[in-house]
Amino acid sequence: LRDKVYYPDHDGWQKGGNMRIGKEALKKALSLTKLVLNKRTSNPLLTYLHIRGHDGELAVRASSGEVDLEVRLPVEDGVEFGPILVPGSPAILAVENAPGEVELVVETGTISIRAGKWRADLATANPEGFPDWPEIGPDRFDGHIAATDLIRALFNVRYAVSRDSYRGIFRGIQLERHAGGFRAVASDGYRMAIQDIGNTNDQPTHKVVLPSVAVDSLIPFLREAEEGSEINVSLTRSLLEAAFTTPWGGVRTSLRLMEGEFPDYQNVIPKEFPVRAVLDVKSFREALERVSVLADEKSQRVDLLLEEGRAVLTAQGDYGESREEIPATLEGPSISLAYSARYLLDALQRVSGKVMTLQISGQFSPTLIEQEDGGYRAVVVPLRV
Amino acid sequence: LRDKVYYPDHDGWQKGGNMRIGKEALKKALSLTKLVLNKRTSNPLLTYLHIRGHDGELAVRASSGEVDLEVRLPVEDGVEFGPILVPGSPAILAVENAPGEVELVVETGTISIRAGKWRADLATANPEGFPDWPEIGPDRFDGHIAATDLIRALFNVRYAVSRDSYRGIFRGIQLERHAGGFRAVASDGYRMAIQDIGNTNDQPTHKVVLPSVAVDSLIPFLREAEEGSEINVSLTRSLLEAAFTTPWGGVRTSLRLMEGEFPDYQNVIPKEFPVRAVLDVKSFREALERVSVLADEKSQRVDLLLEEGRAVLTAQGDYGESREEIPATLEGPSISLAYSARYLLDALQRVSGKVMTLQISGQFSPTLIEQEDGGYRAVVVPLRV
Repeated sequence: LRDKVYYPDHDGWQKGGNMRIGKEALKKALSLTKLVLNKRTSNPLLTYLHIRGHDGELAVRASSGEVDLEVRLPVEDGVEFGPILVPGSPAILAVENAPGEVELVVETGTISIRAGKWRADLATANPEGFPDWPEIGPDRFDGHIAATDLIRALFNVRYAVSRDSYRGIFRGIQLERHAGGFRAVASDGYRMAIQDIGNTNDQPTHKVVLPSVAVDSLIPFLREAEEGSEINVSLTRSLLEAAFTTPWGGVRTSLRLMEGEFPDYQNVIPKEFPVRAVLDVKSFREALERVSVLADEKSQRVDLLLEEGRAVLTAQGDYGESREEIPATLEGPSISLAYSARYLLDALQRVSGKVMTLQISGQFSPTLIEQEDGGYRAVVVPLRV
Repeated sequence: LRDKVYYPDHDGWQKGGNMRIGKEALKKALSLTKLVLNKRTSNPLLTYLHIRGHDGELAVRASSGEVDLEVRLPVEDGVEFGPILVPGSPAILAVENAPGEVELVVETGTISIRAGKWRADLATANPEGFPDWPEIGPDRFDGHIAATDLIRALFNVRYAVSRDSYRGIFRGIQLERHAGGFRAVASDGYRMAIQDIGNTNDQPTHKVVLPSVAVDSLIPFLREAEEGSEINVSLTRSLLEAAFTTPWGGVRTSLRLMEGEFPDYQNVIPKEFPVRAVLDVKSFREALERVSVLADEKSQRVDLLLEEGRAVLTAQGDYGESREEIPATLEGPSISLAYSARYLLDALQRVSGKVMTLQISGQFSPTLIEQEDGGYRAVVVPLRV
């Protein structure tokens, strides 16, 4: 079974060989590469996985052009081989379907995935032309963040990113490093979400903007990190690299950053609030969901009347109207506002804790949503009546 | 709150009123109407639910033009009202979102769905023009079938119905009534599935063809039937009506039948089998799934070599090839055949019991699949090499 495979470092062919590998670990690792494998790419090489056996590990790489991912798994009977390219989707599908522990057998031009009396033999390709791992360079910042903090920050602001392709920088999430913590911010011009981790009162020392499509891969990657583990982060002007360990092996990812930084978003956050309403988060969210059922399909408009002791939500659409009231503690005069139900719900979805404050700067000027213990804040611009 | 609503039987207006109703029961009942409500209809009335309060029950009807459904729920404080029409999707959405037990309040021009401090008021419409319940007529057959038997028969053959809109009668499932049982048959010309319930050796006394789209509603309806319950079935040349009880109330449905009957499908079932292979169902199914992963995407071709003691499955596609062998008991000479993996898998999916027999009539003539205890049979035509 042993034969030779192409190994560019040695300008020639090198021995392939057999290695045994846990199916579940391999499946997990490959499930991450799925998020990167580019199915609709103009570069067919990006539909391949780049694999190599080295130092008792199997290293599998995928690249979308924007996001690069490497997963490393310990293997029994590890042999040196590769790098070679294997067709991504068929390889992943084969591993997912394998009946039990997998043996990989690398031969010239083929990788054979075997388990029991089943085998799938895939044609391999020359790795030439597959993108190199992005060099992060010496002019960089290195640090580490708890995996759960980074996930929370990115996840809690992700919804506020603009969906419009022409919105430039608003298609990204700004990450700011402060001396005592960090901050994630996203906005689409009609709403904004901010998540602070630690102390962010000072001026940020670094600001980078991650494209939201890259974040959509990064969050599931980070969810694989070992419980309580730290993510090693390296930053330059153009790249963010994150490395961490998982229960099944090592992960390293490199994201291309967006150019530019957010316009001064602090200006958008109102400072004066003539009306404040304290509401139960769950009641408000659920009432909003129920009332919005009959809202106008296009505008999704829901009206909110804040009065002493209560908040009244109403909506009117083509088929009828709906209404619900919930208790509220009001500071300031009664006021009537309208919001996009979806925007308000998106913002409320991320609020933690039992009570929240709606801070009203005016009928048509931005409303600030704050949770009990700070950290997360959202700004939503009311609808014009 | 009490007012008048339009009531055509009394050519004028009749009192509406309040009634309390369990949310979960109403939700269940309305979830069935969802399967019938016609969203893309040229008749806008078919997007409405037809409702009436009568005799302590709330009766809700929906019609797709092909399938009519009526669900009946007992209500507390039942009042006489209607029939009225309510916009289907908004009403269902409102009930699904209601916080707890629901009170319906019928007033002129409105139905109000209330729970606690929440309410949704829907504009109602005049029921004129909504299709009448299809009259089944006196020239009919009445009988009853265990719900589980009818579900099994329809479900086990449904996959073999043709997907091509021009295939006429092959877009339906033929139901045959025999003196001692009944049979369901479906075919698309390349494969066939037959499910017998009871004794079907005699000539059928009735044959009807149900359109597969109607069956796709009927199966979920029947799954709501009370455990161990019987379905009352009435049949004419053009209609099948089924009525049964569920844990939450009564259901009645009327399906329009297809015209014509199946060509003599018995001719298609081969009678002579030079080769028979006995296989473990699960092993065969799983091996087929695994091997087909690398099959040619278009043809889905999998090759099967039957030899003394074993069955060898192989597939070849753009990316490589796969192979698995499983034990088999062979009667007759070795033979090599090819099948569409999807067709063979569809047929195997419905086989019950531990072992099955592949009965080979020839390399290119139909293969008959039989399960241990009879009842279900499938015919699959091998691919030409």
